[in-house]
Amino acid sequence: MSIGAISILGAGAWGTALAWLWAKDERQIRVWAHDAVRAARMQETRENAEYLGGITLPESVLVTSSLRDCAEADLIVFVTPSVALRDIAVRLRRVIHHPRAVLLSCTKGIEHVTGMRMSQVLHEILPDHKIAVLSGPNLAAEIVQSLPSATVIACDDFNCAATLQRALGSPRFRIYTSQEVASIELGGALKNVFALAAGISDGLCLGDNSKAALVTRSLAELVRLGVAMGGNATAFYGLSGAGDLIVTCYSDHSRNHTVGKRLGRGEQLTQIKASMKTVAEGIPTTRSAWECGRRLDIDTPIIHAVYAVLYENREPTVALEELLRRDQKPESL
Amino acid sequence: MSIGAISILGAGAWGTALAWLWAKDERQIRVWAHDAVRAARMQETRENAEYLGGITLPESVLVTSSLRDCAEADLIVFVTPSVALRDIAVRLRRVIHHPRAVLLSCTKGIEHVTGMRMSQVLHEILPDHKIAVLSGPNLAAEIVQSLPSATVIACDDFNCAATLQRALGSPRFRIYTSQEVASIELGGALKNVFALAAGISDGLCLGDNSKAALVTRSLAELVRLGVAMGGNATAFYGLSGAGDLIVTCYSDHSRNHTVGKRLGRGEQLTQIKASMKTVAEGIPTTRSAWECGRRLDIDTPIIHAVYAVLYENREPTVALEELLRRDQKPESL
Repeated sequence: MSIGAISILGAGAWGTALAWLWAKDERQIRVWAHDAVRAARMQETRENAEYLGGITLPESVLVTSSLRDCAEADLIVFVTPSVALRDIAVRLRRVIHHPRAVLLSCTKGIEHVTGMRMSQVLHEILPDHKIAVLSGPNLAAEIVQSLPSATVIACDDFNCAATLQRALGSPRFRIYTSQEVASIELGGALKNVFALAAGISDGLCLGDNSKAALVTRSLAELVRLGVAMGGNATAFYGLSGAGDLIVTCYSDHSRNHTVGKRLGRGEQLTQIKASMKTVAEGIPTTRSAWECGRRLDIDTPIIHAVYAVLYENREPTVALEELLRRDQKPESL
Repeated sequence: MSIGAISILGAGAWGTALAWLWAKDERQIRVWAHDAVRAARMQETRENAEYLGGITLPESVLVTSSLRDCAEADLIVFVTPSVALRDIAVRLRRVIHHPRAVLLSCTKGIEHVTGMRMSQVLHEILPDHKIAVLSGPNLAAEIVQSLPSATVIACDDFNCAATLQRALGSPRFRIYTSQEVASIELGGALKNVFALAAGISDGLCLGDNSKAALVTRSLAELVRLGVAMGGNATAFYGLSGAGDLIVTCYSDHSRNHTVGKRLGRGEQLTQIKASMKTVAEGIPTTRSAWECGRRLDIDTPIIHAVYAVLYENREPTVALEELLRRDQKPESL
């Protein structure tokens, strides 16, 4: 298995950053954008001014709105919003050529109603392909500044993960391999819900002690729900899980943290959504995570609090007070 | 067992914050300060302007430099620097009256050469007393602003931990109990070493992705060394461990993080130490932790990097580059 041509489906900040990062040694990269006008503009200007200004895409990157242009790659990378992934995978199935193309999901989310992970959705639609996932503390804005970062690629097939590690890693973008696909995916998806909670805490100015306690209890809750959803406890303490949780809760570059902060300061969700170019994944993921917790009968007080704020109009200050009023008891981890 | 009078040995920021926090319902609190002039000034002014300005100690708090004044309490709290704890415990032994007084260590450190935890040092000197430890993400500056926070009290004896929880907890200072004494203590002590590393990363402006990866690898290293030193892996993922690590790596109130940041910016350690009123516990703890790692043959690359910067004049940028240059491989947790 060798990785030559790469197609990246999704032209948001992360898709653009990955195209820029991996476009080296004349490797052919195609980036698919949903919107034809945007695709043409990016192809023409070599920039993604809307989502990730400041970098120029090399000529080896073709930006297109035709999935057919992307169907011949050795590696097809999904960086679409989670709510669009199923639909795009179905459309890709109609045109995909290369029977051995590896699919790599960089989308962080859990499907509404089914509770499926993105790799499970891909497997259902394209069952003959090897499927890997990439997740870790990787803010796009810093990747394109060449600041050092680390991530995890997980695949059931160890050799596939190792091949991707060699093909896609570099000194400034270190890749660790793993076979814990469920944990790596769930860590990346669930952390966005807790980033909303941490943002609310910041918006309410509850302080660093309180936020650290909230993030710690978030990690325990992420592990509890993640294990019930099929993950391995230890793997959640790695880069995609603890690492991604920490960066998303603490960095000002994080969309989900920003949404939480604005909620904590008293803005309405509709108003916040209207002002943002892309949906913050934490919003749909909160609903999916809440559904999964209920179905599996797992105690998820923080997810419940965020759900109440987003979907039941609970005042953020009331939701956080409810969390804090829980009994003092033995620490359960 | 009931907790009436409390003596707090140590009048730094944390000792002062605890005296202020626990001085309610007319409870008699005595605070011991090493320096007689400072003790007299605090007793007179009801303030600790040097270490924690902005709060007034109620009249029920007596500040003294005589250990004898502190010897009759039901609870004796150690909040001294780790390097002074043994000596103060020996001096206390000569005057202690109450055979059932509970000892509570809030000191975060590991004894140089012996590798002993603070509670082990106390047990060696005062073997007939029940000994508990308190640790968690508790920046003193926020506690005295009545911002909410949470902590853990651990004791081999569950009933003792529960009694302390009832006596010392409040809605704004929630206490969880635990029987994992070694983990709770080691989490609080070792985190200071990693806070130095995170500070160095910030001082070198390596970005949020890189810092989150470093903190995640720090958590894995803390667990690895902590388990070898007698702790329970799961307990390290709680408030004293993950929680304290996170707050110390991310808050501007953290002394150890600040020392790291100044090192990263190129200041010399001697110059930094000369400018600080109290020693940052991470500095002696780095040496102890490094010794323990070597003795137990545990791989501790981050502790080693910090040790090299503090004690071997390694350039921070070189030490961090060495960490980043480690092989890309399977993620080990």
